[in-house]
Amino acid sequence: MTSGLPFDDIRNLIASMPEGDEAAADAVRARDAQLTKPAGALGRLEEIAIWLARWTGRPPAVTRPLVAVFAGNHGVVENAITPFPPSVTAQMVENFAAGGAAINQICIAHDIGLKVFDLALDYPTADIAREAAMDEKTCAATMAFGMEAIAGGTDLLCLGEMGIGNTTVAAAIYHGLYGGNAEDWVGPGTGSTGELLDRKIDVVRRAVALHKAHLDDPLEVLRRLGGREIAAIAGAILAARTERIPVIIDGFVATAGAAILHAADPRALDHCLAGHVSAEPAHAAVLEKIGLRPVLSLDMRLGEGTGAALAAGIVKSAALCHSGMATFEQAGVSGESA
Amino acid sequence: MTSGLPFDDIRNLIASMPEGDEAAADAVRARDAQLTKPAGALGRLEEIAIWLARWTGRPPAVTRPLVAVFAGNHGVVENAITPFPPSVTAQMVENFAAGGAAINQICIAHDIGLKVFDLALDYPTADIAREAAMDEKTCAATMAFGMEAIAGGTDLLCLGEMGIGNTTVAAAIYHGLYGGNAEDWVGPGTGSTGELLDRKIDVVRRAVALHKAHLDDPLEVLRRLGGREIAAIAGAILAARTERIPVIIDGFVATAGAAILHAADPRALDHCLAGHVSAEPAHAAVLEKIGLRPVLSLDMRLGEGTGAALAAGIVKSAALCHSGMATFEQAGVSGESA
Repeated sequence: MTSGLPFDDIRNLIASMPEGDEAAADAVRARDAQLTKPAGALGRLEEIAIWLARWTGRPPAVTRPLVAVFAGNHGVVENAITPFPPSVTAQMVENFAAGGAAINQICIAHDIGLKVFDLALDYPTADIAREAAMDEKTCAATMAFGMEAIAGGTDLLCLGEMGIGNTTVAAAIYHGLYGGNAEDWVGPGTGSTGELLDRKIDVVRRAVALHKAHLDDPLEVLRRLGGREIAAIAGAILAARTERIPVIIDGFVATAGAAILHAADPRALDHCLAGHVSAEPAHAAVLEKIGLRPVLSLDMRLGEGTGAALAAGIVKSAALCHSGMATFEQAGVSGESA
Repeated sequence: MTSGLPFDDIRNLIASMPEGDEAAADAVRARDAQLTKPAGALGRLEEIAIWLARWTGRPPAVTRPLVAVFAGNHGVVENAITPFPPSVTAQMVENFAAGGAAINQICIAHDIGLKVFDLALDYPTADIAREAAMDEKTCAATMAFGMEAIAGGTDLLCLGEMGIGNTTVAAAIYHGLYGGNAEDWVGPGTGSTGELLDRKIDVVRRAVALHKAHLDDPLEVLRRLGGREIAAIAGAILAARTERIPVIIDGFVATAGAAILHAADPRALDHCLAGHVSAEPAHAAVLEKIGLRPVLSLDMRLGEGTGAALAAGIVKSAALCHSGMATFEQAGVSGESA
């Protein structure tokens, strides 16, 4: 506890982020050169093995992967911008608990743990087109709550979300951070087309115009234009960095939490992979802004951490290849002629 | 046994390929519309679930996935086109058996069976720049041997290969099938650069020129310019079609077996997915020629079935999502407003 403003602790954490362990990364590079394959032939898998070592300080291993799904509700839905009623957020949280959602199946397929955090679903954030989504205390407390995602321990944290209306607030964050026009950042989300999409664009335009004077500070962008699940994801990314846990970010909405941190400090996502590029049109542009190249591109746009969890399957394979493959010497395989 | 030419049985199999089961595909579409997600939100995973049903005639399920790796040796290596000696092919087959290769680790990660077939490694095919790689009888017998890949049973067949020199013969097949210039199809493979790459391009150019008069028949392209592992892969793809087993094709070399069948009949790969697009430069162009969109793009260029096996992890997830997710009604989740 500090006696300052609620965001002070967050700003201190951002300022004190640890750097990667380059010795651990170099050790992976050295072993990789001895493995029974042509140099570089595992492509992205080799980069991922190095990345795992850099951010854990250990040889690549994924033994306790976890998907954390944060769910929130949004006052912005009052503007009639989405085809699903907001009650679906809580219904989907129950569906996660019952094992009936897509993320449950993907976690089963790749042996990944799943935790769902519902964030005061009965208390939607305020309508961003009329006022700030949250006060500073609520936003900071929600970020702190998001940090609990890693409390039970994990060595690969996949971050996803659920929340009717949250592609609208994510688009508002991107418009607030990166400028341009509202329509550059707004897409159909769960299925907003025609008039719904027009209203969605209009709401994002009005929200950013309303808060315009306060958008130089990324944490202000988060509390004014964001939502609880996005704040929690930003907190979880930050906590994982502090505890040296590699992170996989899911799609269009989860990336908004990452984009806030990146705007606060461009090094803030060095321990993160983008699990996939979403079919939501603006996601590719956002990933370019934050400098992350997606692992997968499968035309998905579901959220729930589904893209991140699928990518975790690739990351597990990368770790196993590095740790389990024989060296040329061990296998008695001839190397390249000089 | 027939009294005709050795290729006659193969031509008959190609002519009698079964079509997909559109009723099974439609049943998946109908159930998909009821699952607790926005329509289309699982993107490629939804297409894959439909594809699995179409080619198995059953609801999507992957319970016995298998990687089959075919290994062969190539007389074309006499032209000094690769940095690795041909002895590495047999050494890598031993490495597969000992569990030390990348494909072993990826199969462990995704719980996939692995079978390795070595194809007369002590008897390399002839140098394609001087004569036909195989006679018709050998080529047809090797295709028939490849059909054995499915003998123990599988419901998802991933096809990979190993063979020093085989990116050269694969490039020759593509140049033979699709024309253009030799350098359009030749890449570094396991690491042929500089003079090695120049010689590789020259060999492919000379080989295609030598056999030019006989390249209208795709099976002649295979026996003249191909190799045993490529013939076996073509046979395995054909056998899988006959037995209604979906197939995932690996990278640059494995795709050559697929390209032969596609040239013989454009419907021949309808039961196949391209697991990934290789970093080998021409692979993307080949996948366009045969009309397959890769599931993954991870800058890999190892072969062994590694890209196909990683994609099998995605396919397993697609099947589980479809079969395991709750419907809106089951979960008590509100659907879209009309």
